[in-house]
Amino acid sequence: MVLLLSRDSSYLIEVRKGKLHTKDGIFNLDEILKKNFGDKIKTHLKKEFMMVKPNLADILERAKRGPQIIMPKDAALILAYTGISQGSFVVDVGTGSSFLTIFLANYIKPGKVVTYEKDKKMVKIAEENIRLSGLSRFVEIKNKDATKGIVEKNVDLVTVDIQHPEKVVKQAYKALKLGGWLAVYSPTIEEVMAVTKKIRELNFSYIKTVENIVREWQTERTTRPKTMGIMHTGFLTFARKVS
Amino acid sequence: MVLLLSRDSSYLIEVRKGKLHTKDGIFNLDEILKKNFGDKIKTHLKKEFMMVKPNLADILERAKRGPQIIMPKDAALILAYTGISQGSFVVDVGTGSSFLTIFLANYIKPGKVVTYEKDKKMVKIAEENIRLSGLSRFVEIKNKDATKGIVEKNVDLVTVDIQHPEKVVKQAYKALKLGGWLAVYSPTIEEVMAVTKKIRELNFSYIKTVENIVREWQTERTTRPKTMGIMHTGFLTFARKVS
Amino acid sequence: MVLLLSRDSSYLIEVRKGKLHTKDGIFNLDEILKKNFGDKIKTHLKKEFMMVKPNLADILERAKRGPQIIMPKDAALILAYTGISQGSFVVDVGTGSSFLTIFLANYIKPGKVVTYEKDKKMVKIAEENIRLSGLSRFVEIKNKDATKGIVEKNVDLVTVDIQHPEKVVKQAYKALKLGGWLAVYSPTIEEVMAVTKKIRELNFSYIKTVENIVREWQTERTTRPKTMGIMHTGFLTFARKVS
Amino acid sequence: MVLLLSRDSSYLIEVRKGKLHTKDGIFNLDEILKKNFGDKIKTHLKKEFMMVKPNLADILERAKRGPQIIMPKDAALILAYTGISQGSFVVDVGTGSSFLTIFLANYIKPGKVVTYEKDKKMVKIAEENIRLSGLSRFVEIKNKDATKGIVEKNVDLVTVDIQHPEKVVKQAYKALKLGGWLAVYSPTIEEVMAVTKKIRELNFSYIKTVENIVREWQTERTTRPKTMGIMHTGFLTFARKVS
Repeated sequence: MVLLLSRDSSYLIEVRKGKLHTKDGIFNLDEILKKNFGDKIKTHLKKEFMMVKPNLADILERAKRGPQIIMPKDAALILAYTGISQGSFVVDVGTGSSFLTIFLANYIKPGKVVTYEKDKKMVKIAEENIRLSGLSRFVEIKNKDATKGIVEKNVDLVTVDIQHPEKVVKQAYKALKLGGWLAVYSPTIEEVMAVTKKIRELNFSYIKTVENIVREWQTERTTRPKTMGIMHTGFLTFARKVS
Repeated sequence: MVLLLSRDSSYLIEVRKGKLHTKDGIFNLDEILKKNFGDKIKTHLKKEFMMVKPNLADILERAKRGPQIIMPKDAALILAYTGISQGSFVVDVGTGSSFLTIFLANYIKPGKVVTYEKDKKMVKIAEENIRLSGLSRFVEIKNKDATKGIVEKNVDLVTVDIQHPEKVVKQAYKALKLGGWLAVYSPTIEEVMAVTKKIRELNFSYIKTVENIVREWQTERTTRPKTMGIMHTGFLTFARKVS
Repeated sequence: MVLLLSRDSSYLIEVRKGKLHTKDGIFNLDEILKKNFGDKIKTHLKKEFMMVKPNLADILERAKRGPQIIMPKDAALILAYTGISQGSFVVDVGTGSSFLTIFLANYIKPGKVVTYEKDKKMVKIAEENIRLSGLSRFVEIKNKDATKGIVEKNVDLVTVDIQHPEKVVKQAYKALKLGGWLAVYSPTIEEVMAVTKKIRELNFSYIKTVENIVREWQTERTTRPKTMGIMHTGFLTFARKVS
Repeated sequence: MVLLLSRDSSYLIEVRKGKLHTKDGIFNLDEILKKNFGDKIKTHLKKEFMMVKPNLADILERAKRGPQIIMPKDAALILAYTGISQGSFVVDVGTGSSFLTIFLANYIKPGKVVTYEKDKKMVKIAEENIRLSGLSRFVEIKNKDATKGIVEKNVDLVTVDIQHPEKVVKQAYKALKLGGWLAVYSPTIEEVMAVTKKIRELNFSYIKTVENIVREWQTERTTRPKTMGIMHTGFLTFARKVS
């Protein structure tokens, strides 16, 4: 994978022979095969791009589609609040297009993420995205309904991003090790209410629900928050298994 | 290090002989030496705690002091937006008490964080915190003023948390590899204005300034945002070296 | 009523004979009786104050107590969104300490606010506050439970600030004229859910729920939002009777 | 003026003879002349509307154009924080399309708003809007540059919505009575910085800069903040003349 980067546009490509047609002109990919990271390449319109090694943020940013996908700000907060890192063992409920799965796998490798998705079509899409991320070795995808059972034990973190998240809380509790965390992403307040109720019944501790609002500022010519922006993605509920 | 965890309080301790006096009663530490993670221990007041292996969030949360320190929500956003991860090479300007240094080291190991701090007293404090984190192997602390020169090259990320951040932008630019990121944390808007001006002069691209506001919700009995909260920590400015 | 105003403190007083002891020193009130608005007066500690005619914001600000009271930002939004003004006829359900009652009366006079409060003790407190505001002529306070019946008709605005606001929506609908507005203040999301459900059943239109977050900035020396602040007061739900 | 109101659309019209073509069908205006407020009227497509007496919010909402105009939430905060009301005397600097002028005139009548606008073209537009609002008697519009001089004295409130608001602060100070308020609306932080600096030089007290963010919630089917929204309009700076 190569990231072609100019000042105002970028293309993420898998290296192969042939041509790539873009709004900035045509890239001759054969040329890229002969060059190295850090080299320059021009389109037939003479627009110059740098060949850069993409990191995972580059890959995820360009792979994402639809407003349904958990955003980097929310995925990162899960890392920060639960402290999972290299070597952690994570169960991820509701793979969807696998943005969160890949994000987590990247930070817990050589640990492992087991991800549950009951919808066969989503499994196919997720598998392709995981393959592109180069993290397949650290991810196991299960075409199963996690509310029916999570067989993993001694898990550091269970993440949940499904409708009716309350249905999987008991299974999550059983899977978690002592000191392990549950993190639930819920777009609606009804889900927050249902899931926190269940979390309290099951005797979790350190329960905390937050939303984080990222506000972008304009700094060119004048300095002010941008007029329009994303007001809401989802609520994040955290809870820790203590007994 | 052991985390003693009950439903409503927790203690992070280095394992040693003796007694630990707390508001929940006295722990007999000799007893802890004989037990394993997952075991229970009681204070002399019969309050029960679980012995849990602390993760870095546990360590950082209990080590942090003062409102000056960058918060997990902001540190995590740097990860998410710049995509640095295992193996990355980071220069961190303004070690302070080293919260950000440790946070980054934990996610980029076996990569390396070189951190600059001109104040000798802060260096001492930072060294002790880094030792406690167990990440010393991945951190090099330099008692130097980074505005006078950053000798590292081919850096994936330069983070800046000093007064007058604009003074180090040129050095950061030289240190960064193509495709690398600059991330500046600034409590005040004056710093945002000065640093974005300098960033534009130096031909960085993908410039973006954000603030992220984490709002905590109460979910017990009734559901509503908490009345009081943290309205502001700092602005984060991101910029990418493209040419 | 006189407002004694210095650069950093202020006192709202009813003019009478005698002395007033304050942290800024003792005022000789006899002296005030002889002076006019715009004149200066000194405490026995030589601290100077201006004698100023208080406006209603001065009176309300110094009268308010407890976090339960609707704040000016929320009261003002009701004016702005419903367009009530001089001559409007308002029914206010849940007088409480009468902050909202007085605020509305001040802007709709020579119109009228009829306010319902079922708790006799609150009625006493409210009556005293209304008297102090000088707006008694434009307010009628009823020691009744509005959920049992609102007898007024052809009302421009019904405001609701009680627990279980959904119980009064039907009565509000009957009281409103065509084109009239309902405005409900609810601290919790459970109340928002219950009241918007009822509002939809009763065929209101132009339904809108908002929260407004006022963030204060520090501008002395450096410019930045204040670190701590009020994150939440209540949600405001608006609905219009169209048929 | 009549407001024609259905459940999902509305039209504000001046009563006259003829036809009105709308996306809901054609209204026969002659019919309206024969009817009263509260009566129903149908378009040729049989869509039913109620004839309602418009209030000022109805008029302003339907008159407003462009994102430049101060929004009701901000105009209302000026009322709430400064306490101006019936009988107040206001100077409004920077009439623009006169939204704020009209809003204030509606709440201070039989007081007076004197509004300064140096751009002759804007004066024409403002005059037409003020005429439509029916508040001409309480507004005096001056085609003058207020930074060159404000001749009014003993003013309760000076509002400012111009570029370089700092240039008019001294004139505002001279115009204000003791206890009077200055309220400045500034989209950018540069204006906040310039104007608060000037305000401090001129010895104003009770200085306060805020932004208010109105977040809209969706309550149909599920309950959650709307995804996109207005993140920023302008900052409001308040200051009081005390000496």
